[in-house]
Amino acid sequence: MREWHILLIEDSDEDVAATIRGLRREDVALVIHRCTTGDQALDYLYQRGRYRTPTQAPRPHLILLDLNLPGTDGRALLAVIKDDEDLKAIPVVVLTTSNNPKDIASCYQRGANSYQIKPVDYARFKQSVQTLIDYWFQIVTLPEDDSAFPRSY
Amino acid sequence: MREWHILLIEDSDEDVAATIRGLRREDVALVIHRCTTGDQALDYLYQRGRYRTPTQAPRPHLILLDLNLPGTDGRALLAVIKDDEDLKAIPVVVLTTSNNPKDIASCYQRGANSYQIKPVDYARFKQSVQTLIDYWFQIVTLPEDDSAFPRSY
Repeated sequence: MREWHILLIEDSDEDVAATIRGLRREDVALVIHRCTTGDQALDYLYQRGRYRTPTQAPRPHLILLDLNLPGTDGRALLAVIKDDEDLKAIPVVVLTTSNNPKDIASCYQRGANSYQIKPVDYARFKQSVQTLIDYWFQIVTLPEDDSAFPRSY
Repeated sequence: MREWHILLIEDSDEDVAATIRGLRREDVALVIHRCTTGDQALDYLYQRGRYRTPTQAPRPHLILLDLNLPGTDGRALLAVIKDDEDLKAIPVVVLTTSNNPKDIASCYQRGANSYQIKPVDYARFKQSVQTLIDYWFQIVTLPEDDSAFPRSY
């Protein structure tokens, strides 16, 4: 089965555990790479620091991005990704508790591919993650980028 | 029930009929506005020509875009939408028969929110449209834009 790499950028261990439980399924082979801060995610995406061995940080097929993160937050990180010619094609799904209309509007304006508010209720949270996987990995065709990743900076 | 407006840009009557059959459901109130060419879609989005009465052309919550269209094609139209500060926040789902890796890569690069290849088999086509609706109208939070639309040009 084809492996798909997801970069999950989320500081809450509890939300990561719930997301991974929601993501688990037999018909799609997902490899989850988790970063807890925006700066760590930048190191991952640019294969720097602890991620300088390329095999440690394969280019993700999809990024799941929390907005409220310590340091470089999700809003700033989204802007970096979508302003970078090499990274912008990677779909970014914002997965957040924020229902602030300003966050929703500005994330779409900055190029977020979709915006999902995390339901508080676990059954609904799980459903939302499962529909996310159905949609992005069974219905959508994701970009294939087998070019060297990333280019050197 | 809340009404959601979809702008469906598709020249094939057969594909429109199949899409509308796939979209039909009781739990989501969708209003479909159909344009057959890229130029007609531009008139819709900028409320010009036959769409100059604003109530005829409400801002869509989601755009479903075919790539191969007469005149201004879907690739050019996507670039116009995603380069326009007033339009870029509207999610654009590319819905096409093209499985050309260049189309897939360049649509994501230009800011398509997702890229779906239309299955030839009708049952799979219907499933793909239904998952699209589940995802975008039941799981995702769409941008709300109650500002005057569009600004004058």
